[in-house]
Parts: sequence; C-alpha cells; structure tokens
Amino acid sequence: MLKKSFTLLCILCLKFSVNAQIQHVEPLNWWVGLKNPNLQLLIHGENISETQPSINYAGVSIKKVNKADSKNYLFLDLVIAKTTKAGSFTINFKKAGKTIYTYNYSLLPKQQASAQMRGFNSSDVIYLITPDRFVNGDYSNDVVAGMKEAKINRSLDGGRHGGDIRGMINSLDYIASMGFTAIWPTPVLENNMSGYSYHGYAITNHYKVDPRYGTLDDYKELSSKARQKGIKLIFDEVLNHTGYGYWWTEDLPFKNWLNYPDTKTSTNHRRTVNQDLYASDYDKEFMKKGWFDRMMPDMNGENPFMANYLIQNTIWWIETIQLGGVRQDTYGYSDKTFLKNWSCAIMNEYPNFSMVGEEWSVNPLITSYWQRGRKNADGYDGCLTSIMDFPLQEALVNALKEKETWGKGLTVLYEALANDFVYADPSNILIMGDNHDMDRIFTQLNEDVDLTKMALGYLLTTRGIPQIYYGTEVLMQNTGHHKVDGLIRSDLPGGWKEDTVNVFTEKGLTAAQKSTKSYLKQLLNWRKNNSVIANGKTLHFAPFDGIYVYFRYDNQKTVMVVMNKNEKEIKLETKRFDEILQNKTSAKNILNNETQSLKNGLSISPKSTMIFEIF
Amino acid sequence: MLKKSFTLLCILCLKFSVNAQIQHVEPLNWWVGLKNPNLQLLIHGENISETQPSINYAGVSIKKVNKADSKNYLFLDLVIAKTTKAGSFTINFKKAGKTIYTYNYSLLPKQQASAQMRGFNSSDVIYLITPDRFVNGDYSNDVVAGMKEAKINRSLDGGRHGGDIRGMINSLDYIASMGFTAIWPTPVLENNMSGYSYHGYAITNHYKVDPRYGTLDDYKELSSKARQKGIKLIFDEVLNHTGYGYWWTEDLPFKNWLNYPDTKTSTNHRRTVNQDLYASDYDKEFMKKGWFDRMMPDMNGENPFMANYLIQNTIWWIETIQLGGVRQDTYGYSDKTFLKNWSCAIMNEYPNFSMVGEEWSVNPLITSYWQRGRKNADGYDGCLTSIMDFPLQEALVNALKEKETWGKGLTVLYEALANDFVYADPSNILIMGDNHDMDRIFTQLNEDVDLTKMALGYLLTTRGIPQIYYGTEVLMQNTGHHKVDGLIRSDLPGGWKEDTVNVFTEKGLTAAQKSTKSYLKQLLNWRKNNSVIANGKTLHFAPFDGIYVYFRYDNQKTVMVVMNKNEKEIKLETKRFDEILQNKTSAKNILNNETQSLKNGLSISPKSTMIFEIF
Repeated sequence: MLKKSFTLLCILCLKFSVNAQIQHVEPLNWWVGLKNPNLQLLIHGENISETQPSINYAGVSIKKVNKADSKNYLFLDLVIAKTTKAGSFTINFKKAGKTIYTYNYSLLPKQQASAQMRGFNSSDVIYLITPDRFVNGDYSNDVVAGMKEAKINRSLDGGRHGGDIRGMINSLDYIASMGFTAIWPTPVLENNMSGYSYHGYAITNHYKVDPRYGTLDDYKELSSKARQKGIKLIFDEVLNHTGYGYWWTEDLPFKNWLNYPDTKTSTNHRRTVNQDLYASDYDKEFMKKGWFDRMMPDMNGENPFMANYLIQNTIWWIETIQLGGVRQDTYGYSDKTFLKNWSCAIMNEYPNFSMVGEEWSVNPLITSYWQRGRKNADGYDGCLTSIMDFPLQEALVNALKEKETWGKGLTVLYEALANDFVYADPSNILIMGDNHDMDRIFTQLNEDVDLTKMALGYLLTTRGIPQIYYGTEVLMQNTGHHKVDGLIRSDLPGGWKEDTVNVFTEKGLTAAQKSTKSYLKQLLNWRKNNSVIANGKTLHFAPFDGIYVYFRYDNQKTVMVVMNKNEKEIKLETKRFDEILQNKTSAKNILNNETQSLKNGLSISPKSTMIFEIF
Repeated sequence: MLKKSFTLLCILCLKFSVNAQIQHVEPLNWWVGLKNPNLQLLIHGENISETQPSINYAGVSIKKVNKADSKNYLFLDLVIAKTTKAGSFTINFKKAGKTIYTYNYSLLPKQQASAQMRGFNSSDVIYLITPDRFVNGDYSNDVVAGMKEAKINRSLDGGRHGGDIRGMINSLDYIASMGFTAIWPTPVLENNMSGYSYHGYAITNHYKVDPRYGTLDDYKELSSKARQKGIKLIFDEVLNHTGYGYWWTEDLPFKNWLNYPDTKTSTNHRRTVNQDLYASDYDKEFMKKGWFDRMMPDMNGENPFMANYLIQNTIWWIETIQLGGVRQDTYGYSDKTFLKNWSCAIMNEYPNFSMVGEEWSVNPLITSYWQRGRKNADGYDGCLTSIMDFPLQEALVNALKEKETWGKGLTVLYEALANDFVYADPSNILIMGDNHDMDRIFTQLNEDVDLTKMALGYLLTTRGIPQIYYGTEVLMQNTGHHKVDGLIRSDLPGGWKEDTVNVFTEKGLTAAQKSTKSYLKQLLNWRKNNSVIANGKTLHFAPFDGIYVYFRYDNQKTVMVVMNKNEKEIKLETKRFDEILQNKTSAKNILNNETQSLKNGLSISPKSTMIFEIF
C-alpha cells in the first residue's frame, strides 16, 4: 500500500517535473562582443511570472524583469558587459526562495566582428530561388512525419515539390559558374501550415529551419560553402506576419502581441498611407494592423517586446548563418516607427551589411521613402540600404513591349531612370525583370527570346543590384497562367533526378534555352570582372528611332550600351555621343570580342542590347 | 545754284536727322521705389555703340555701358538711388564731343508698394480665357490694317475670331457673379504673325498690346475694373520663345541673343533633363536651346542681357497693369539657372505676388521640382510659387472614367493626392480639369454631365487653386476633334452679337448647360465664402465601393465631400469617419441646405460629388 502510494507520488512528481520544464527561451542563444549590450530574453513557462529570476555570471546582469499579460511569460532585460566572456550560465527562477525552474543559456563568441559582416551591393548579381521548386537534393526529407502538410505532390502547383537546402548546396558550383555572386532563397524557416506551405512566407517558428528543407546545420553548410565560392547568402525575412499555428498563438504573451487576433481583419493594402499627408488614422490602422492573409497572423511591432523579439531574431540569423544580407518582405505593412527601429538596430550593429525591402509600388516617391539617407520632408529616416525597383521593372517591360511612338517604348525606360534624383542612393537599388510574385519575364515579354535577352542585357549594365529569378536562364515561363504563383514558381528542369530536361547538363534544352543561358552566363561573368558596371557613373541619351544608348564609365573604362528595338540591323552614327566618346576610336563587342571603328557608325544587330567596351 | 545746294543739304540734313532717331529703348519707362536699384536699358540706334551716353538727373547714374555684338546696340546699366524722385531725364549720346542722339526717359512713381502687390492664392478660382474666342467687345478692332494677319474668319478654327479686351471688360460682371476671383487671359501682346496668330504665344513685341485686342489703356482698364470687382488679373508670359518677325530679329544685339537663329533646330521636348542625374549635355542643349516651333525663335536666357531684358519686362507689366499674378509658359524649356534668376528676381521684388509655371508633366517629381521652398537634392531653389497640377488632372479624369476595380477608379485620385508630400506647398498648386491645350473636360469625360459636375465639385473642394476654362460652365466641348487647338478654343456662345445661343442671357442654352452653369455658380460663390476650402486641412479616406470621402476642416468648420460614382443612391454609414466627425450630428448639403442626421447614414445621390457642412 505504501509502495503503491509512493509510486503514485512519484508519477505525480514526474508529471510535475515535466510541467516544470521551461518551454521556450528565445533567442535560443546570444553572443558576446555585440555593439548593443542589451538582450531581452523571452521566457515561456507555466506560471513563470510568479518567479524571480537570477543569473550569476561575470558581466551579465539582469536590468529589469518584465511581466506580460500572460502569467506564463517573463521578458528579462539583460545587460552583457563588453568584457563578458563567451560561455554558459544558469538562469534560476525562484518562488518563495525555492528554485522552480532552471535554464542553461549560452553566450557564443562571434565568428567575425560586426564591421566585417558585408552585405550585397552593386558588384553582386542575386539569384532568387524558391527552394521547394529549385533542386531536390535530399529525397529523404520530402515528407516529414508530424508536419501538417506532410505530403509531396509535384503535379500540384500549390503543393510541396521536394526542393531543399541540400539542392541549393549541390548547385552552388552551377550558380557560381553562371556568374552569380549572391543567392536569395525565399524563406526556409518552418512553415507548419496545413497547405500552401511551400512558399515559406507563413513562418511558424522564427528559430527553426523547416525540416522539409533540412536542418540548421544544412543551412550553415549552405552559407559557408557559398561563401567559399564567392556567393553571399541573403535571408528572406517576414516582419509583418507569421503562419497560422505558431506556438505562442495558443498563449499570447500580450493581448496586443498580434493585431486583430480575434477578427483577423484584413489589411487594406493602402501602401500610400505611410507618406500621405492627409491619410486618415482609420486607413493607417488597417494598413499596418490588418492581416495580409487570413492564414497569416499580423505581428504588432508597436508592442516593444515584439519589436525586440523580431530585431533579435534578425541578429540571431545574421550571426548564426553568417548572412550576406537580408530581404525584408511586405515593407510598409508594419508600423513605420518599428521598421525604422528594426532597420537602424541592424545597420547600427553591422555598418557594412545590407538589407532590401519589398515595397511593391511603381511610384518612386513611395519606394524611395524607405532608403537610408533619404531626406524625407516628414523627417522619417529609416536605415534600409536598398529597396526593390518595381518602378523600373514596370518601365522595362513596357519599354520593350510597347510600340515606339511619342513618349512610349524606350522613352519610358529612359524617363524611369531619370527619376533617380529622388533616391538617396540609386546604385544600391535592387533591380529585376521579375520575381517570385510576378509573371516570368519571358511571359511578360510574350515569350520573345530577343526581348528577354534585351531585358537581361539592360539589367546587367544599368545602375543597381540585379536580381534574376532561377530558371530565367532557360526561359522558364508561366504563359497562360497570369499571376498563378505556383506556376510562376515551377520546378527547375533537372532539379529532380527523374527530370528529362536538365538545366545543368543542358540535356533536352532547346536552342533558345541554350542560347539564353550562354548569353546570361557570358554577361554575368563579364560584369563580375568589370567594376565599371557596379561602381561607374551613368550617362544616357534620349531614345530616338527605337534606339536607346547609355554609357557606364569611370576613370579606367567606358562601356557603351545600345538597345535596338528595330527588327533590322542599324548603323548608328556616334557623333551625338561625342561628349563621352571624345578621342576614343573603337568599340569592342563584349560578347564576341569583335571590334568596330567608331568613325563610320556602329553596326547594331536587330532587337538586341549590345554592349561595347570603348577605347 | 546756291539755293539748290542748300536745299539738297537740307534734305541730307533731314535724312540724317531721321536716321539719327533712336529706334528702341526698352523697358519703355521705369519706376522709382523698387527694391532693386539696378536698371539695364536696351538702346537701339544706328551705330549707337560709337557714342558715349550721359545722364544728368539726381539719383540716377550710369554704372556701366555695355556694347553688344551689333554696333547698333548699347546696354546701359543704371543705378537708381533710393532717394530718386519720379520724373523724366534726357540721355545724351555723344560722339567726339557732339551729341548724336538724345532720348527722354521717364521714371514713374509706383502705384502701390511692392509688398502690397498680391498674387492669386488658394482663396481664388481662376477663369482661363482665350481672348480671341471669348467675347468680341469691339468690332472696330477686328481687322487692323498693317497686321500680317489682318483678316477675321470665325469659321476658321485657326483664324482670328475677333474677341478682345473690351469683351473681357464687358464680361467682368458676369465673371464676378459666377464667383470667379481671378482671370487668366492667354497672352494679349502683339502677335504679328501671318497666320495662327489668335493664340497669342508668338509674341512679336514684349511692350505692345496686340491692336486687335485693344490698346494698353484698354488693358489697364481691364485690370482696374477687374480689381474693383474683386478679380485679379493674371498675365500670361512666354520666357522661352517669341513670334517670328520680332523687330530685333533683323539686327540681333548678340550672336547668341537667340538660340539656333539659323538652323531653327527643334527642341527635343525631353522635359526630364532638368532633373535627371544622367542626362547628356547633348539632350540638355536641345531641350533648352531647341525651338518650340519653327515659327517661334528661341530666346537665350543664358545671355545675361536677354535675361535682364525678360526680367525687366515682367516687372514692367506687373507695374504698368498692376497685375495679380503671372502664368509662365513652357517652364523648363529655358535655361534653369535663368528660370531661377527670373523667378527669384520677381518674387524678391514682390514678396506677396504669385507665379505659376506650366511644366506639363504628369510626374509629380518633375512638377514639384520648380516650386519655391522645395528642398531639391541638387540644391536647385527657384522661386516659382505655384506649378500646374497635370498629375492630378490626369488622375481626376482617369478616376472618373475608369471602372471601379482594384487600384483603379477613385483610388487613382486618392493616390494622386497622396503624393502631395513631394510638394513644398501643395495648397499653392494650380488645379484644373482642362486648359486651352487639352480636350475640354466635358469631352474628356465622354460628354457625361454628371461626371463633369463631379469633376467640378472635386476641383472646388480639394486643396489648391482651381482654374476653370471659359465655357466649361455651359459644357463647351471638342468631341471628335481630339487635341484640335482651334476647336478646344471655340467661341463662347453669346460673345458675338450675331450669336443665337447666349451664355449671359441663357438664351438657347440646353437644360444640361443651364444646370451646369447654375451648379458651378453656386459652388463658386459658396467656396468664396468658406475659407476652410482655401486654407483648411485635408483628411481623406481610401475609396471603397465607388465612393471617395474627404474632409476639409479648420477650427471653425468641417466640410465633408462625398464622391459617389455609383449609378444609384447610396446610404453611407459614417462610423468610419469618427475620427473627424467626433460629436457632430448633422450634415447640411451646401447646394440645397437640406440637413441630414449623421446617425443613420447619409443619403448620397447617384453619380455626384456631394458637399456637406458638418455640425
């Protein structure tokens, strides 16, 4: 009887001890040697707010213990002195003098000093990858038991197809040989959603790689191997929203941790309210607090604990993965003061880092607002180093598609670039022909191979940081499926062992695909070795007769780019360009090294962007 | 024989004395009491550069005598001391001690101090008039002997129709009763061109009223009578070009007095080069130096004597006519440093004056560049107080014409106004539905009377300085004649005694015309008495369901404007507007004084802009 009672007691005792585990401490670890000595730990454990935490570690002190609305949370404000050594310490949580919880926390040494952490810049060309659709490098993680969407179905455009981090690791040689110097995989963090989880923007755990993509170690391996090959790894981050089913949704720390947790009210997508002098509070509220999607809870960056949570998460990934940049989703949908605090916290810590925000507006007044250094009339001064040039993207496609009439065609492109005076730093803008949310550039250009090459030629020679979506090199398309995301993000041919067409081996590629791939590869590698494109000045001439001519130049080199939309070869008189050509006499086509004299006019191939080194 | 010789001598002597007349001195006179003590006189006379000028008048001194490229010009730099009294003095031109020429020059007293000279502002609504097509008040000056186009032909859309200054004088009561507080007649200076002279933009003498419009005294009478009726007179000026056959084209003072005098090279109309970081000198050169039209010689504002000539001409008209503002043609087609010097010289002299420039771009980045107070990245700081809101004009028409779909329709108007943060002073922008160079607003809106009234309702309640083209009140149109200038500028019905339809008496007007005229009149007079529209703040709400709601408010008054594009009456719930409605309970329709309660939703008529005073 006694024995039985003891056993029962022990079972209860065991049960208590299980319950007495701290459930979450985030960030998972931290570092010594950061500029900012402050660290705010989110501690999640049953009734933990009733405890008093203490730490006994040289250099680490608890500045403040913050309670939340839920009694199961504490937010510990720690100060980590400059002299603190890397190591682990125990946090004790006592109640009435008795230790209820203990937690072992690590402070790691930094792998490199913050000032050494370099982001992408105009010397880079970024390869944008949708990991699920790129290369399936590990078939064993295609289906992971316990995940809500644990199926794989390549024939379903909204389903998971099996691409993963291993696939990206395996493709690094290909990517490097093509001439790309950075990759931007769309998010690889856990998206434990019941469906449509492949895209990655419904993150359900900010500290966990999605097991269908691989492990944290795989992600680290991707980063370090990429770096060895001269490729920067860009992290795709989502500050505005999460996926549905995040662990804390069941027990929110604060009533306002999420916006509209009950009504799931939609955002109004009114992207102008952040700048608009006349915007109503009503519209501002719904813009920033409304949900981007009913399956994506909206995080409240105005809650200072949420703000810290997200800022620290960014730093955690930068340090853990040794990132080469951040891409920030749906910029402008969060509170703008929070966006400023986030971007400046990161850039203050990593002065040579870079971050690009997705402000999907074709109005350069709106996009330019967010870039670091912009003198905004309202005094807003965020620290985002780069924005995405949606205005130029639209102009490029219209310029190529439209007939050449007064004010249309190439003039649209010329005039779009003429807006650069609005930007604080036009050379640090991300430029693209398309991305994972737009029709493929080949489709936008009505599957015209020549125009697609013209677009690529432009993107790789104009100012800014070009981004090319995976598969563009083999003319991937979504023709007939306008804005169908799952078909825009189709599988790269050859990314699956069963594929009959293969980008890597070129098996089964059409002549047009081969030619585009070769053209792009040549251009990318030429660009990599010609810093005049990354850092040179720009001079352009108003288009005429379907021809747009611009120059990139510095003290060492002058490059002349001629976009010719005519269906026939033209002879281009160069007198108009005297101010830049000066006493130079020859033009070398960078693709075939053929040299022409400037004296008798340049021969320009039909429908092409021709690039010449002038000497 | 002796007698005969003497006679011959006397004939020669007479001939000499005729030749010895000074042909031109400009400005024709000047004033004492201007802030700027400097005056540069253009003196034109045969071989005048061989003479030494002298002046003997207290307070007036010759600072410098400037020779030109032609020996028939001198440019005298005078200094007029603060203490100088109004009066006349003789300028003596001596050669080898002998007076060759004399000229009597007048310094007038100023009619009012410079600081008292007030321009138009947002309290005004401007009535734009094409004088030749408005009202023929004096049939005796329809045909003026000696003018190259000395015919009149009302059936020719490019011909002269006979409207004149007297016609405008006679219509002032009508204009005032309608509720307009300013008139902008297109230029009334001499256009002695062989054809198409009616439009007025080919000025052949900067100091002469075109006799077919009347005399300088008529012009002065127009100004003073207008002022008595509370109407400001705006002068339409053309700094960029003249008409063909200007007196000095036969004997140019300087080789670079005009641009491209021989080749008449066209402008490239590349309006972006003034701001573009990458623009070529080649394109900049053709933009500013190229001719706007082969019949319109391009004046060179980079020549400092031409610059002074034009600046002084502006001041001359401001003082002579006692103007209430300047409208400047083809802004951006002149040298931008000259434009800055011109605009700042005028605004420095008349700090409360106003001037609006025509920069015909639908890109607010380009238009905003010119407005006084704009902090341009390149440091450019001109003094133009107002620009024309072509971006908003396009948005307004598209917003009304387009179907209400995502991002289209009224959202276009909402988002256009949201760009106001780019402007240094959005309340001082000139807004319009059309002007003399665009299809009539009624035509642009496919002759939809309701939409036209909606546009007028918007223009008279949003921020800015509204401008309405003559005849809009009776739905004048150019339907079927897209951009045919002469038909856009049709005769106002009733402006000619033989007309059977008459705007003034309303004889022959259709019901729609009468209703539009009455609507506009009511709105204009209401606006005049409600300074909240001129000076109040603006708050707007993102459009939804074809409805766009905005408020104009100050400490005294709140006005609610509802644009409803739906074909049916709607009941508008007002909860969304709580932040501005606060504890107000009633809305009074300003057109019929009907009051509704805000509690149960506002009844909004189909396809209308409804304006309510809220209390």
